[in-house]
Amino acid sequence: MGGVKKIAILGSTGSIGRQTLDVIRAVPHELEVVALTGNKNLRLLEKQIREFQPKMFCSSVKPDISYSGEFLSAEEIASHPEVDFVIVATAGKAGLTPTLAALRAGKTVGLASKEVLVMAGEIVVREASLHQAEILPIDSEHSAIWQCLQGEESKPQRLFLTASGGAFYHYSHSQLAKATPEQALQHPIWKMGKKVTIDSATLMNKGLEVIEAHWLFSFPFDSIEILIHPQSIVHSMVEFTDGCLKAQLSWPDMRLPIQYALSYPRRWASSGLPRLDWDEINSLNFEPVDYDRFPCLKLAVEAGRSGGTYPAVLCAADEVAVQLFLSHRITFTDIATIVQNTLGQHRNINQPSLKEILAADSWARECATRLSLDQAKKPRRRSNRNIERQ
Amino acid sequence: MGGVKKIAILGSTGSIGRQTLDVIRAVPHELEVVALTGNKNLRLLEKQIREFQPKMFCSSVKPDISYSGEFLSAEEIASHPEVDFVIVATAGKAGLTPTLAALRAGKTVGLASKEVLVMAGEIVVREASLHQAEILPIDSEHSAIWQCLQGEESKPQRLFLTASGGAFYHYSHSQLAKATPEQALQHPIWKMGKKVTIDSATLMNKGLEVIEAHWLFSFPFDSIEILIHPQSIVHSMVEFTDGCLKAQLSWPDMRLPIQYALSYPRRWASSGLPRLDWDEINSLNFEPVDYDRFPCLKLAVEAGRSGGTYPAVLCAADEVAVQLFLSHRITFTDIATIVQNTLGQHRNINQPSLKEILAADSWARECATRLSLDQAKKPRRRSNRNIERQ
Repeated sequence: MGGVKKIAILGSTGSIGRQTLDVIRAVPHELEVVALTGNKNLRLLEKQIREFQPKMFCSSVKPDISYSGEFLSAEEIASHPEVDFVIVATAGKAGLTPTLAALRAGKTVGLASKEVLVMAGEIVVREASLHQAEILPIDSEHSAIWQCLQGEESKPQRLFLTASGGAFYHYSHSQLAKATPEQALQHPIWKMGKKVTIDSATLMNKGLEVIEAHWLFSFPFDSIEILIHPQSIVHSMVEFTDGCLKAQLSWPDMRLPIQYALSYPRRWASSGLPRLDWDEINSLNFEPVDYDRFPCLKLAVEAGRSGGTYPAVLCAADEVAVQLFLSHRITFTDIATIVQNTLGQHRNINQPSLKEILAADSWARECATRLSLDQAKKPRRRSNRNIERQ
Repeated sequence: MGGVKKIAILGSTGSIGRQTLDVIRAVPHELEVVALTGNKNLRLLEKQIREFQPKMFCSSVKPDISYSGEFLSAEEIASHPEVDFVIVATAGKAGLTPTLAALRAGKTVGLASKEVLVMAGEIVVREASLHQAEILPIDSEHSAIWQCLQGEESKPQRLFLTASGGAFYHYSHSQLAKATPEQALQHPIWKMGKKVTIDSATLMNKGLEVIEAHWLFSFPFDSIEILIHPQSIVHSMVEFTDGCLKAQLSWPDMRLPIQYALSYPRRWASSGLPRLDWDEINSLNFEPVDYDRFPCLKLAVEAGRSGGTYPAVLCAADEVAVQLFLSHRITFTDIATIVQNTLGQHRNINQPSLKEILAADSWARECATRLSLDQAKKPRRRSNRNIERQ
């Protein structure tokens, strides 16, 4: 491998971006930050720039900071000759074109943004293969699967994605209908951004991960299964053809999969990262997933299976619905209804171009917004409020 | 790899030998049995010879069977040019010299006999390295560790050997003192030979596995830990320097580690082997091991740490004590006492030759037998009987 890896972090002010910088602070001799990009949190971006002095930076508004780095677009940064490794930790679809730029320039991409593969898996995987560029997963589940696949010559039989179950796993249908954003944001295990935490409560997040796993490991949907594992210690498992399984376990801390992607194929000792204490772990529990109470999961897997522009529509409709839920404009169970109805109104395009994917995204946002307004007007919501008042 | 692997099975009439033949029956196009060796169970050996028609065979008494195969010594078979892969599944020290013969001839050895590495780990590992011969583990725990290490470039931090706990894990001191051979042979999970089942109840078996793991993976004793895991589904785990762990899981069935050693580096699909059913696994439990109630475990790890001829003395004394326990001549807790006292009377030889190891083995058998007779005469046993009569 030789030498210090030069890292660009797209989305350095978000949750994964900040934790990536934590990892880099702990192993400064292995990694060098050459580029940082943020969106609207200029104050934090400026602080990060002062600390890491990257050669390049980017944000939605150019910050007023006296420093010698170049202000470039995310695509220019992702494909820049000074960069070895691009961490894509942006929100929503923002990572899509920079990821493609990085892959076309033969960079290694550490992928934390789910939307990139969900929206455009076929194109992204094809570009990576054409330019012999590697995509390394940063999600804890996909990192676990990737770790379990190391050194295995035979194709596995099944992938088991584990799921904590989110904030509401043991809620009844009627409890789910009344669940508030404040409750949904109390994730039992992981501290994440708001969008991901709501997606975790609807299990949409797990559905997006199924689609990601399909593309990352070129694995059929029928062989990707989900197990509810409340402790979030087993991050996923792989079953091989002989019936043996491998599991990857660790304390639930995103710095571990981030560091593994950066250290791969080695591992770095890092005293700052937490370890499992087997004196405290008495039991690891597993239960089958309930598709019935969590329709978003089913919608996501079906959209992934159908392919084309459906997964992009799924992502866009979900983003709109989650924002409206967070601002108390629709109920928790409305999220699935809106996503389902948006998918129902979509005319799918098979093997879409990037342009067609982005057009489907825009269409879905409009459609979902319109459906949400209709949903918000329905008398059902008022009757729910009445129940709550009783 | 190319072509059919030619297999010699040393100890084909024992539990592991019979299960190896089961695996070979299931994948006849990959493997060819070229040699079988048995000990006293001539009837079964003859049956196996008729079925597999090996080119060579061996047993303690030459069977009266009309067939064209050659009757050779186990050492001649293990080093024969017609053999690619030697499964060592003999009982006690019988596997030691054939294993060395196989390694010196550059054969791959699938090792199921614990005594080989426990008695002569240093010599065996040195010969394997000198002749670039591979030793592949067949014990479920060591196979699990080996599987978890595949593709990992960095040396691991800790090994966790799991233990079902055997028949008596929740017995009190006084219950252990009264435990019978019949009770000890009721292993909760694994069906194995009598000697191994008793070793499993004393946890001596786990201690021998710690010594084996030390030699197989050149791993320090201080970093090998034991976790009681009653379900025997997680067969062992490896912790890496970054704090991540990998675990190997499967239905507890010895055919799985046997097949993995034979198929390595690939895996074979085998419809005959059982699979884990996650609808039925609700919980995987772990608890720390209690060295206090299971002194054999402590004795084994200490003998391994001290090295020299101590581990050979440990094995021999345990074999004598277990036989006497099985024939109701000593109590369950006497086993540890006899092993401890034999070790206490031994004058250790560092870096012993094979001859010195075998001499220590003979000395220990005599010493343990003498101590057992003394133990059996002690009044303590009579008072135990009185308690039982009350």
